[in-house]
Amino acid sequence: MATPCKQILLVKYSSEELSDENFEVSEGEIEAIQAGSGDVLIKNVLLSLDPWNRLCMHSTNQGLYFPPFSIGKPVPVLSVSRVISSDNADYKAGDFLTCLATASEYSLIRGGKDGAGFPLKKIDPNVPLENYLSFLGLPGFTAWIGIVRIGEAKSGEQVFVSAASGGVGLAAGQIAKMRGCRVVGSVSTDEKVRFLKEEFGFDDAFNYKKEKDWNATLARMFPNGIDIYFENVGGKMLEAALNHLNLHARIPISGMISQYNKLADGVRNLMNLVGRCAKMEGFLAYDHITHYDEFVSEMLPLVAESKIVSKHTITKGIENFPLAFIGMMRGENIGKALVDP
Amino acid sequence: MATPCKQILLVKYSSEELSDENFEVSEGEIEAIQAGSGDVLIKNVLLSLDPWNRLCMHSTNQGLYFPPFSIGKPVPVLSVSRVISSDNADYKAGDFLTCLATASEYSLIRGGKDGAGFPLKKIDPNVPLENYLSFLGLPGFTAWIGIVRIGEAKSGEQVFVSAASGGVGLAAGQIAKMRGCRVVGSVSTDEKVRFLKEEFGFDDAFNYKKEKDWNATLARMFPNGIDIYFENVGGKMLEAALNHLNLHARIPISGMISQYNKLADGVRNLMNLVGRCAKMEGFLAYDHITHYDEFVSEMLPLVAESKIVSKHTITKGIENFPLAFIGMMRGENIGKALVDP
Repeated sequence: MATPCKQILLVKYSSEELSDENFEVSEGEIEAIQAGSGDVLIKNVLLSLDPWNRLCMHSTNQGLYFPPFSIGKPVPVLSVSRVISSDNADYKAGDFLTCLATASEYSLIRGGKDGAGFPLKKIDPNVPLENYLSFLGLPGFTAWIGIVRIGEAKSGEQVFVSAASGGVGLAAGQIAKMRGCRVVGSVSTDEKVRFLKEEFGFDDAFNYKKEKDWNATLARMFPNGIDIYFENVGGKMLEAALNHLNLHARIPISGMISQYNKLADGVRNLMNLVGRCAKMEGFLAYDHITHYDEFVSEMLPLVAESKIVSKHTITKGIENFPLAFIGMMRGENIGKALVDP
Repeated sequence: MATPCKQILLVKYSSEELSDENFEVSEGEIEAIQAGSGDVLIKNVLLSLDPWNRLCMHSTNQGLYFPPFSIGKPVPVLSVSRVISSDNADYKAGDFLTCLATASEYSLIRGGKDGAGFPLKKIDPNVPLENYLSFLGLPGFTAWIGIVRIGEAKSGEQVFVSAASGGVGLAAGQIAKMRGCRVVGSVSTDEKVRFLKEEFGFDDAFNYKKEKDWNATLARMFPNGIDIYFENVGGKMLEAALNHLNLHARIPISGMISQYNKLADGVRNLMNLVGRCAKMEGFLAYDHITHYDEFVSEMLPLVAESKIVSKHTITKGIENFPLAFIGMMRGENIGKALVDP
């Protein structure tokens, strides 16, 4: 029996700011599972809005090793989901799991392998589920890789986190704090500045939209220089940070969100990397997947004991996915942006 | 007794291409050594022309942790020198050594510490002396750090070296070849292309001045992508290389010579570092000085057995230092550029 299913299709690529013209809400249906297929039908409980999805909405590969999304198909997104029916011995109805699903009420998972080719990952439903898309999911894992594995953060070091109130930034700042670093974040509103300092333990923060000269801002915020710049935005903020690096500074690059909607700005002062003997290293969470268990074993107790402060902006209704996604790209959310379809 | 001494003074900073107006040939004299001073008077046998010197001829720090050179003073340069007289128990007349001296016939070394604060380093005069400023000196050590320590070159990898016919580039290419890599170099003339392939064992090379579209050139030269880009030039060549990185590529940055005479070009596609999980790391040879003995023990037998092919462009006469330096910055030399004062 087919299941009626509202879904969000990508209907147009864009190299500018997205609008609702890039998406279409469609009333589709999901065919019944065939015996012997190994397929799993899941109901999506929470959908994750991540900047990497935006990169796949350009018509050409944007320096990633995954290709553009298909036009006319549901947008691939990370999800927390519940199994409705299953022809796969590894999964039974009622199981909760996380995977690369689609922006839709339900997703059909062929052969039990998700959109990235990975097996569905079962999760513990006693932990608040949204955490599996924030601190225990891609944003938290991304933050941990950048701060711990690439940044090799040490106590007393100076850490700058851009896009600090997003899912990755909040996790990166708090992980760095737990390692004894001084942490400063850049955000887009005064309200977020206050949140970072009062609720998330950042030592300082600034509203980049109000600052006229980021180079001067960073000189003021980092009188002792920057040891780690957790890079989420790229462009002019990277250029400013490069002027304040300490000897042997590290720049883990999680992404460059300021550059995704346009032709990228040129970074003119990379020579600072030479003078400061500093490194910039890009990374994708999938590439470090062998360290995922180590990450979870560190983060799960911290999340359970609320030593990491979690924050989510949850938009209700699958039909609101496009606006919620566009809002996330504009930095309108605080904490991890999610859709409850 | 004072010693008459021709010397080259820096008389004007520049943020454009250097001309002979930036330098002045001066007839000075070097005062006699005082008893108890620990001073050493050396005659400079060979002077090294290196791109890093250019960076110190700007009025502001160019992202290095050494300051601009002083106006009206002899230009600091690396040298091979011979001791003329000494008030220092560690050095005696006739010793050969290498140090940071000055662009002059003689240099007075106060207390036996050179312009960088290091002790004078004695060398074996049975090895052809020019090697101490090329494969056994700063260029060779720089190349070795980039290829071996930062690049971690492995057999079968694809290596691109820019400014490949200069002192650092020739060493980098040959060190990579000895590790079993395929090596391609970029140079500024067809003659240099031929040299690289016929005399220095490069697998391929191209004249960047003749190529219209470096992105297309690198696609042709590297059908299997780039694992290590040994970066000597910066700007548009870096941008082109970023488009051809393999997963986990490494970009050791020795310098960015194309950018030293001007306001730097912006690099717009750093996002490739994320998609390819690649790193860029700047370095200065001094910062790795604890590995110098390891480097020498690897290189000395190779130089002695001529397994590394050495090449030098030696200009005679201290008064020709300015033109030789300007020529080196234009890439007119093949191999290491030196002045015999």
